[in-house]
Amino acid sequence: MDKLKNYVSVKDEDHFYHQGAVELLIFNFLLILTILTIWLFKNHRFRFLHETGGAMLYGLVMGLIIRYVTKSPDVESGTVYECEKLKSGPSTLLINITNQVYEYQYKREISHHNVNSHQGNAMLQKMTFDPSIFFNILLPPIIFHAGYSLKKRHFFRNLGSILAYAFLGTAISCIVIGLIMYGFVKAMVHIGQLKQWEFHFTDCLFFGSLMSATDPVTVLAIFHELNVDTDLYTLLFGESVLNDAVAIVLTHSISIYSPKENPNTFDAAAFFQSVGNFLGIFAGSFAMGSSYAVHLTKFTKLCEFPMLETGLFFLLSWSAFLSAEAAGLTGIVAVLFCGVTQAHYTYNNLSPDSKMRTKQLFEFMNFLAENVIFCYMGLALFTFQNHIFNPLFIFGALVAVFVARASNIYPLSFLLNLGRKQKIPRNFQHMMMFSGLRGAIAFALAIRDTNSQPQQMMFTTALLIVFFTVWVFGGGTTPMLTWLQIRVGVDPDEDLKAKAASQSASNLDKNTTKAESAWLFRIWYGFDHRYLKPLLTHTGPPLTSTLPEWCNPVARLLTSPSAYGDQLKDDDTVYIINNDELTENCESSAHVPVSAQDSTGSIQATGKEDIQEGDLGLGGYKLQLQHSAGQPQKNSLA
Amino acid sequence: MDKLKNYVSVKDEDHFYHQGAVELLIFNFLLILTILTIWLFKNHRFRFLHETGGAMLYGLVMGLIIRYVTKSPDVESGTVYECEKLKSGPSTLLINITNQVYEYQYKREISHHNVNSHQGNAMLQKMTFDPSIFFNILLPPIIFHAGYSLKKRHFFRNLGSILAYAFLGTAISCIVIGLIMYGFVKAMVHIGQLKQWEFHFTDCLFFGSLMSATDPVTVLAIFHELNVDTDLYTLLFGESVLNDAVAIVLTHSISIYSPKENPNTFDAAAFFQSVGNFLGIFAGSFAMGSSYAVHLTKFTKLCEFPMLETGLFFLLSWSAFLSAEAAGLTGIVAVLFCGVTQAHYTYNNLSPDSKMRTKQLFEFMNFLAENVIFCYMGLALFTFQNHIFNPLFIFGALVAVFVARASNIYPLSFLLNLGRKQKIPRNFQHMMMFSGLRGAIAFALAIRDTNSQPQQMMFTTALLIVFFTVWVFGGGTTPMLTWLQIRVGVDPDEDLKAKAASQSASNLDKNTTKAESAWLFRIWYGFDHRYLKPLLTHTGPPLTSTLPEWCNPVARLLTSPSAYGDQLKDDDTVYIINNDELTENCESSAHVPVSAQDSTGSIQATGKEDIQEGDLGLGGYKLQLQHSAGQPQKNSLA
Repeated sequence: MDKLKNYVSVKDEDHFYHQGAVELLIFNFLLILTILTIWLFKNHRFRFLHETGGAMLYGLVMGLIIRYVTKSPDVESGTVYECEKLKSGPSTLLINITNQVYEYQYKREISHHNVNSHQGNAMLQKMTFDPSIFFNILLPPIIFHAGYSLKKRHFFRNLGSILAYAFLGTAISCIVIGLIMYGFVKAMVHIGQLKQWEFHFTDCLFFGSLMSATDPVTVLAIFHELNVDTDLYTLLFGESVLNDAVAIVLTHSISIYSPKENPNTFDAAAFFQSVGNFLGIFAGSFAMGSSYAVHLTKFTKLCEFPMLETGLFFLLSWSAFLSAEAAGLTGIVAVLFCGVTQAHYTYNNLSPDSKMRTKQLFEFMNFLAENVIFCYMGLALFTFQNHIFNPLFIFGALVAVFVARASNIYPLSFLLNLGRKQKIPRNFQHMMMFSGLRGAIAFALAIRDTNSQPQQMMFTTALLIVFFTVWVFGGGTTPMLTWLQIRVGVDPDEDLKAKAASQSASNLDKNTTKAESAWLFRIWYGFDHRYLKPLLTHTGPPLTSTLPEWCNPVARLLTSPSAYGDQLKDDDTVYIINNDELTENCESSAHVPVSAQDSTGSIQATGKEDIQEGDLGLGGYKLQLQHSAGQPQKNSLA
Repeated sequence: MDKLKNYVSVKDEDHFYHQGAVELLIFNFLLILTILTIWLFKNHRFRFLHETGGAMLYGLVMGLIIRYVTKSPDVESGTVYECEKLKSGPSTLLINITNQVYEYQYKREISHHNVNSHQGNAMLQKMTFDPSIFFNILLPPIIFHAGYSLKKRHFFRNLGSILAYAFLGTAISCIVIGLIMYGFVKAMVHIGQLKQWEFHFTDCLFFGSLMSATDPVTVLAIFHELNVDTDLYTLLFGESVLNDAVAIVLTHSISIYSPKENPNTFDAAAFFQSVGNFLGIFAGSFAMGSSYAVHLTKFTKLCEFPMLETGLFFLLSWSAFLSAEAAGLTGIVAVLFCGVTQAHYTYNNLSPDSKMRTKQLFEFMNFLAENVIFCYMGLALFTFQNHIFNPLFIFGALVAVFVARASNIYPLSFLLNLGRKQKIPRNFQHMMMFSGLRGAIAFALAIRDTNSQPQQMMFTTALLIVFFTVWVFGGGTTPMLTWLQIRVGVDPDEDLKAKAASQSASNLDKNTTKAESAWLFRIWYGFDHRYLKPLLTHTGPPLTSTLPEWCNPVARLLTSPSAYGDQLKDDDTVYIINNDELTENCESSAHVPVSAQDSTGSIQATGKEDIQEGDLGLGGYKLQLQHSAGQPQKNSLA
């Protein structure tokens, strides 16, 4: 620690050369410690503390050290200066101090009550990130990875339930937490606490929306390791992924609603505007994210250069995020759907080498970003300077979070079970209830703006709830699984086949099946399989067979030569067809001869296309290349 | 471009949500364009424009657009305010503007003559990075990758020459450029130009040192693609890698020397202090970088978790950089030697999966960072606001750079050829002369501090020289290779063996060989092979056979079980022995039976160690794992 002290005192003389190096070194050190701990735990099959919990713990200890060991040499920084000539805050301020001009960069506005805390430790200030780092740098890889690694088939099998939990559930959770907290706040004001500042209902709703973002990363890691029942895994994973997106947009919409005239009365116009905002931002981000995935990898034959392909893939995914942000939408939502779409379409166009590279790259970025955030959470408990601990509020929030989770899971599961063939059993519901951990997103949303006192109190509370849930519930996952007698050691693919078989056997009475939401997905899948997949990837049936005859010239141009051979391999679709309807099979088998007939005709078309593209000097071995690109599609991302 | 304008004008109302998104999007867009262009060029086997040249070109066009299409809404930013209460510039400034407290962050000191340029375009300001981003974020991966991908065997074969070019050559180049520029500046002052500010000899030397960092990335990429003669490749690559480190430390030493009383007189004490600084910083950074490489991968069996292993590897390499920076040394030099050492020792301990992951990760980071820098260079020509174009100075600098390169390569090659068995032929010398491109390092060193007018002029000049050399010499590489009749299509391994064979055949008259510097490397190699490799990796002969007998207990503990089987495979050493001396072979064959004798005894020791380490639950399959980790060592990084 002597080095730290020394660093702080010499910083002025040549801070040029090691700006920020010590702070980053501290993070590196914490991450290295975390990695070694994870290794030790994994070796001992010790599952009570997940890596994120460990990272948080180390962060906590380091925060304690920084807070109480380093001293504050920066005496001057608490003073507020007056500049009567300045009428508004420019983004860059040039100031003349004893005949030297200094450039200052605008950072933020500070409430008067926070000014005093600025007299604090310079080291603490340095360890405090700009909150936008979370949203622009750390969250995107985590969210993208979640979308990219979604187990598609299991996900689509449970899509209805997942959407219900994610959209309805998050809304319920947000409102329930908001109401309970509003009651608590009123009661606290009544008994004399919390009188000095106003705490509006919109603040409570804001808190509700940010606390509704669940992050069961700990639980999912254990599920993955133990091979817990796939349906449970998918429900939980799907819910948590989509729920983040919903919570982020919800928080944004509520924060837009906030600054109205009288925040305690209900303003219908403003409310509908917020709902409209929510829908607009969500849909816009969804559209932008998906559209970025649909990119050039099909017609540029980048497969020969996996590095370029990986680079393009990475840059386009990041562009989806940045474009959404630049357009005033939500980048996180865009990057999530970009990940899902990339996995669904673009992934199939990649060369085997790039498939592996991209997966490893995003896995690695996800790993680093996640551990940095959890380390930072640990640090923040001691290094953040404007904590407001209010035990009553924290207790109320804990109660609210559990009640909200319960009123999300149990009623929705009951309703879903009315419609589901494969019911969600009681013990799954308990496990989902138990897995309502809060994590990175809740923290990032809370730290985004901590200027007012209610915001600071909410931040402190959110942080403590994250700690509590990650350590207590994360640690209790394995005992809970045993106690609830949830089966482990399931092979996902076997499980799926078994379930599909049992389902299609019971489907012989066809009429009941149609009542389910399957028709919607059948339409979507048909469209996707027949038009989108062949258009965007090298797989699927040739467009020449799916499009009407008069489209043939265009269809030939757009269909990849390898598609003609691949159409029977596309087991995604085969599976969906098997699973949904037996009648569909007849249709699809009626459809195979058509394309087989057509394929002789279209091979000539392919030859023609080869000649055209031979201009690029690739005609010779293009066909072979594409074949190798098409092959690993069998064991694709699923 | 409408979007850009729009963005700038709305930034105040919710800049919170898309801070920097547009700027990053521009870079993403440029990089995507670059990738597509590279792909097109590679497909056409078009080698006149390398990707870095392309990136620069796109950057240039984008810079032009930003400069002349976007408008400046930020009128206020050119005004300098007075605050009589402020006596020194605090790092965080709190300012009260119309009863709101704003926080401002210290950015830098500005010379009075630069204040006016701050009235410029806000978009231009946004597109200007903080120079420390180059040193802390973009350069480390490039330099690390260079160190990590050094072809070890060829490198060590030519180590003497490479060191001579890198250390002596860079010093010569620095002094020559400094002298020529000083002459030019004096002449310019004489004829009436350049009278308004002082231009000291140290400034000229500073310019010389930064212009001495060569970066033949374009040339090397072409060499690699065409499989140019390995010795030439290694000489050039080795020189450019080490030369960067030398130039960076040299620039730092000179900038420390600068602020003495009278900068035009020679101050012996200050000079020796600078030399001492150079040596100290270089040695310190070297030591710190190498020590970080020697890490825990040998005894923690992380091989089962390639993700953790990759993470640890990445974090430790970055820590080498950060620690050096925090200790006031040069992080870039530390990270370079960390890369070299990691490749030499740690790489052997990694699991095959991690070997590939780390290589791909660093390759990817190198690719991105390099293209970002070259894009930025293109942009900077139009977006940087304090350019000082002085045609005479630029012309002088161009002349100086070529004269300096010539007085580096030709005299040194002549001297080296006196000692080398394998002479450096005339056409190689011409090619090396021709390959003196300037690139990322020169640019980063020049942009580091652009506050004074001489620095601005040097920056502008350096930038233009980078453009000129990358486009003209980079583009001319292939014709030059043909013209100089340098052979291409060489298989590196075959080449090495052929050369070694011809050399050892001519070595039968032993006495002449000893005159070469080989004895130094024989000692080093012996030490490395017998002690360091077995200590730090799972390869090499067991320590039990190389250490004296009384060390056996310690030796057994430190030797990896797989070392006993591997000792004959270590072809690095076998090669060096073959290459240097035939007598050495006798010694080494005398040494094999000893260890073979010993191995029966040490297998028992191995069994014991297994039991001890069985506590970690790994005893069962550790040996097998290590075998598979040891196997790919044959075709290791070379």
